[in-house]
Amino acid sequence: MTMEEIIIAKRDNKELTKEQIRFFVQGYSKNQIPDYQASALLMAICLNGMNDDETSILTEEMRISGEVWSLDDIPGKKVDKHSTGGVGDKVSLILGPMISTLGAKLAKMSGRGLGHTGGTLDKLESIPGMRIVLSYDEFKNQIEKIGMAIIGQNEKLDPADKKLYALRDVTGTVASIPLIASSVMSKKLASGADCILLDVKYGSGAFMKTVKDATKLAKVMVNIGKKLGKDVRAEVTDMDQPLGCAVGNSLEIKEVIETLKGRGPKDLNEICLSSGSIMLEQAGIYKNRDDARKYLEKILENGRAFEKFREFVIAQGGDVSYIDDPSKFEVSKNIIKIYSPRSGYVKKINALEIGIASMHLGAGRETLDDVIDMSAGIVLNKKIGDHVNKNELLCTLYTNKDSYDEIIEEVKNAFMFSNKEIKHDGSLTHNIIE
Amino acid sequence: MTMEEIIIAKRDNKELTKEQIRFFVQGYSKNQIPDYQASALLMAICLNGMNDDETSILTEEMRISGEVWSLDDIPGKKVDKHSTGGVGDKVSLILGPMISTLGAKLAKMSGRGLGHTGGTLDKLESIPGMRIVLSYDEFKNQIEKIGMAIIGQNEKLDPADKKLYALRDVTGTVASIPLIASSVMSKKLASGADCILLDVKYGSGAFMKTVKDATKLAKVMVNIGKKLGKDVRAEVTDMDQPLGCAVGNSLEIKEVIETLKGRGPKDLNEICLSSGSIMLEQAGIYKNRDDARKYLEKILENGRAFEKFREFVIAQGGDVSYIDDPSKFEVSKNIIKIYSPRSGYVKKINALEIGIASMHLGAGRETLDDVIDMSAGIVLNKKIGDHVNKNELLCTLYTNKDSYDEIIEEVKNAFMFSNKEIKHDGSLTHNIIE
Repeated sequence: MTMEEIIIAKRDNKELTKEQIRFFVQGYSKNQIPDYQASALLMAICLNGMNDDETSILTEEMRISGEVWSLDDIPGKKVDKHSTGGVGDKVSLILGPMISTLGAKLAKMSGRGLGHTGGTLDKLESIPGMRIVLSYDEFKNQIEKIGMAIIGQNEKLDPADKKLYALRDVTGTVASIPLIASSVMSKKLASGADCILLDVKYGSGAFMKTVKDATKLAKVMVNIGKKLGKDVRAEVTDMDQPLGCAVGNSLEIKEVIETLKGRGPKDLNEICLSSGSIMLEQAGIYKNRDDARKYLEKILENGRAFEKFREFVIAQGGDVSYIDDPSKFEVSKNIIKIYSPRSGYVKKINALEIGIASMHLGAGRETLDDVIDMSAGIVLNKKIGDHVNKNELLCTLYTNKDSYDEIIEEVKNAFMFSNKEIKHDGSLTHNIIE
Repeated sequence: MTMEEIIIAKRDNKELTKEQIRFFVQGYSKNQIPDYQASALLMAICLNGMNDDETSILTEEMRISGEVWSLDDIPGKKVDKHSTGGVGDKVSLILGPMISTLGAKLAKMSGRGLGHTGGTLDKLESIPGMRIVLSYDEFKNQIEKIGMAIIGQNEKLDPADKKLYALRDVTGTVASIPLIASSVMSKKLASGADCILLDVKYGSGAFMKTVKDATKLAKVMVNIGKKLGKDVRAEVTDMDQPLGCAVGNSLEIKEVIETLKGRGPKDLNEICLSSGSIMLEQAGIYKNRDDARKYLEKILENGRAFEKFREFVIAQGGDVSYIDDPSKFEVSKNIIKIYSPRSGYVKKINALEIGIASMHLGAGRETLDDVIDMSAGIVLNKKIGDHVNKNELLCTLYTNKDSYDEIIEEVKNAFMFSNKEIKHDGSLTHNIIE
């Protein structure tokens, strides 16, 4: 078998065999296959696709390309959650405390933000002292003790994904459902969870632009789970406006705290309740989602979910005084208020443009080497469906940069208005794939 | 502009702009674009194609990627010829002397053989002393003086093609009409000829397996010529059996000599007369092909074409005593005669299998590092359409290898017989694209 034969097979739209996929993943992980052959195969996969069998085999080979962690020592089902990324998506930080309060175990590895999307790790690090690197033993012990841990990707897990992702990023081969699905699933499966809930987003601020593509990706990932014997479910949710009101790292942590105290924005609250009830059902804590939802609502009201978040911050070395008094978070030196140019109803808030504006304010990275300004970002005062008067406050920008006139224009352009009333009930969940 | 944007454009089946193609060719030639990005683009071109405009721009950018030779100092039109390669294809060595005898100027760069196809350079080098590396000035002077020169590819011409070809060879991206067409045409156009005749072969021994694909490739190359203002024409000819009877380097030189003396195999003779008359028309020596053909037939009869070949060998330093007495060529120590297993008509002689068997006998290279045995090869005693009796001689193998039982089987398997008479008139030219 040669790599060239494998490339030619996929170029000619043939189904790759298990042996061919293994040859590629093992060879590439061990630096025995050069980048230029790997990228030719990736482009052939981009254009000719892979069926569910090939995608599952690719996932499994990537999963076992490095260390594989087991969480079997910890009693009960361990659940994990993955969002395909969006603007203002701080769901994991709320959901984790919610479900672990009710007895589920959240074992989660998160990533950093790039471009217009934020990263859970960056948000966590805006809390002074927070450790996002734990050893395998620390990770397991913390999950057993307090019911949750959220850490960074471990370098030893799934090295195939790291190499492949870096190559895809510079060769125009990111946009491929089998490659996205295998990348997400191999990492998740290598870190030892029993059940996984996926949140596949679509819309202007998401990687998948249409509900159709998002559903297709969700189905492929759920099928990988079935083929590999794991309980994987997916929600397909819209990202046509930022999730919640805050975009930017410490701004989002403040919103996490508010939401855990039962005072979150409607859309954010709703996705946390929806995802949480599915995960509690997966973990076998409640026999149906309706029961689970009732308990989730209760622990937001009675402060127990917030208390669990405090425990989590303390367990990972964070300074909990910031959680108890969010006014301690540093505030950007420039606070710019954007007022509505007209009266009417908010029809659209382009999440992609808001995400990019937030990045330009300092909250995100244009390249991996950029340093994030934890205090920068945007807080929306209006969301889709809200009525607004002329000169009423639309949103507030936070930045330590001295030049921001262009960014103001970007943010203004992200809003669209309508004279007619817009129906938007704040509910986000469109479809559950299981 | 970034290379990633260019890859994504072609991945998404968009037409690349002149600026994008230039950015790629210049950047890649100057080692500013890494192989892994180039191979991703090559695969996208393989699968999504390029239209004639893109292919012409690619050709032109490759052509000017290094030195560009001009032959304008030499009076008259300079013609060049390219065959897409086959088994037993020694046409250039016969055609060159034929047309230059009649006043055309042949300025040709040739390649080496690899795999089942032979290379004109290797065949030339079987004549002791023959020089295949000439400087630009030597090349020009020889064409002016004797009317022809055949040399190796010059490293300074079309460096983009050299890098791209090496990459395509290991990334499954050879089989692409725009990439093949631009590779052939950019080299030809960089070496300064005014007119080019292409011989695009199809069939078992050729790169293009069907007449349809060969015609498509021929049309693309002729169109490139039109767009770049050169007189480019193409013949589409079959390679369903080896061309002529000899396969192997010095064996083929002997057949060249016989053909130049008017005693060549019918199919080889026919393609030389057909190609020669087109080239003489292109060069403006005769006003139509019928006239040209009459003169070509005459100079084969009267020995003037053979005399020109002698001049050519002498001009490039070859020992002409081998041309005058071909029995001087070393003969392989093992001469193996293959007899027909049955009586009937020869229906097929698989050119690919004969080419591979010849390579195994020592006449060709499996990898670029292999050393060729100049005396090895195969001489066919029967061709398609010939009647054969049981135990009559089919062909003779020449080798210096001591183990050849498997090769005998390969050669036997290449022949197919029929009880019915097979009509095959030895004419090869199926279509002329101009």
